[in-house]
Amino acid sequence: MTELERLREQLRDFAAARDWNQFHSPKNLAMALSAEAGELLEIFQWLTEEQSRSLTPEAQAAASDEIADVLLYLIRLSDRLGIDPIAAAKRKIAANAEKYPVDKARGTSRKYTEL
Amino acid sequence: MTELERLREQLRDFAAARDWNQFHSPKNLAMALSAEAGELLEIFQWLTEEQSRSLTPEAQAAASDEIADVLLYLIRLSDRLGIDPIAAAKRKIAANAEKYPVDKARGTSRKYTEL
Amino acid sequence: MTELERLREQLRDFAAARDWNQFHSPKNLAMALSAEAGELLEIFQWLTEEQSRSLTPEAQAAASDEIADVLLYLIRLSDRLGIDPIAAAKRKIAANAEKYPVDKARGTSRKYTEL
Amino acid sequence: MTELERLREQLRDFAAARDWNQFHSPKNLAMALSAEAGELLEIFQWLTEEQSRSLTPEAQAAASDEIADVLLYLIRLSDRLGIDPIAAAKRKIAANAEKYPVDKARGTSRKYTEL
Repeated sequence: MTELERLREQLRDFAAARDWNQFHSPKNLAMALSAEAGELLEIFQWLTEEQSRSLTPEAQAAASDEIADVLLYLIRLSDRLGIDPIAAAKRKIAANAEKYPVDKARGTSRKYTEL
Repeated sequence: MTELERLREQLRDFAAARDWNQFHSPKNLAMALSAEAGELLEIFQWLTEEQSRSLTPEAQAAASDEIADVLLYLIRLSDRLGIDPIAAAKRKIAANAEKYPVDKARGTSRKYTEL
Repeated sequence: MTELERLREQLRDFAAARDWNQFHSPKNLAMALSAEAGELLEIFQWLTEEQSRSLTPEAQAAASDEIADVLLYLIRLSDRLGIDPIAAAKRKIAANAEKYPVDKARGTSRKYTEL
Repeated sequence: MTELERLREQLRDFAAARDWNQFHSPKNLAMALSAEAGELLEIFQWLTEEQSRSLTPEAQAAASDEIADVLLYLIRLSDRLGIDPIAAAKRKIAANAEKYPVDKARGTSRKYTEL
């Protein structure tokens, strides 16, 4: 079993033991994931990009915490939808390699539709 | 190497080949992650919870795509911050087990501060 | 002066008095707005739609608070960008009336591209 | 009638004519607002703060569009909840003036809990 699968199992047990499946619809889990992404944003909102590259210990710990929350909801949402997030990510990297060929995308942040 | 580490390496190579590290500050990556979480929300916003439990093939494919985007930015952000997302997630599950003991949290969606 | 213009002036004075214009780039204000939208989500994430239609007094007060935060950042962001939010909203309503003609859009939540 | 009230009335009519009140639960409207805030983020995610202060005409038009979307959902959500967003914003400014006294908050982006 991979690391993500182990976390998926733990989250399943966690929810089942607390009778939380009733709350864990994909709709609700997408909301929870997005709310945690918002907490991640809050850590960075007043920092310069430079400051965000070398966080204070407090901000680093907070970022680690919010990254964990996003990941846990992502695993849980994927489980409830029957989606394999690793396989989806691999497909996406392959698609991005086609959309952003090295020679066109080098050094620019433009969207692939504008390359 | 685990699956997430392999994806991390691929994303590093992807960004380096395109000279994108200049854009990939933690601040910017947190924004990109949150924007993708917003696209995930959009799939579910007008669906009932019931409908979200059995998506149409189109919505399922769209959800898979957005989950991939969130995961890829999460891996990239963690890498740039030097955070191990799996270790962070394990710590979070342990902390949640303490905050939400089974006997108090069963069947309720209340926050731990209100249990 | 309209209500929104009065709020805009108050926020200008508030920021100037605290020397906060250095932090209030449009990029940062968009992040702050989105983080507040995430806090709004959090209020609703485990509620059914039905429950969201008749909030408890606590949830109602929390929603009012977050709506205020979103509005204040929206006004501030618009001001820094030189955008008139009311004029933009009027244009949007007109555009939506064309995209969603009554006879095609009645009773469906489909996107205009799928009507 | 104020500008916001006029927009509120137009949105009421718009939804009623299309039989959309069934979709416009506060939960769903909070999701839609947050998804639009995510689209706003996307405009700024790869820009420097400096670039965000002088947008290209295309980015400026896109920002105006997303600001309109956020405002319209904010008005609609407030209406469905029976909240007056202007009154809420005024209360918030007063509260912020107490939390962030000029002499303590000048020149710092720290949260009030850390002043």
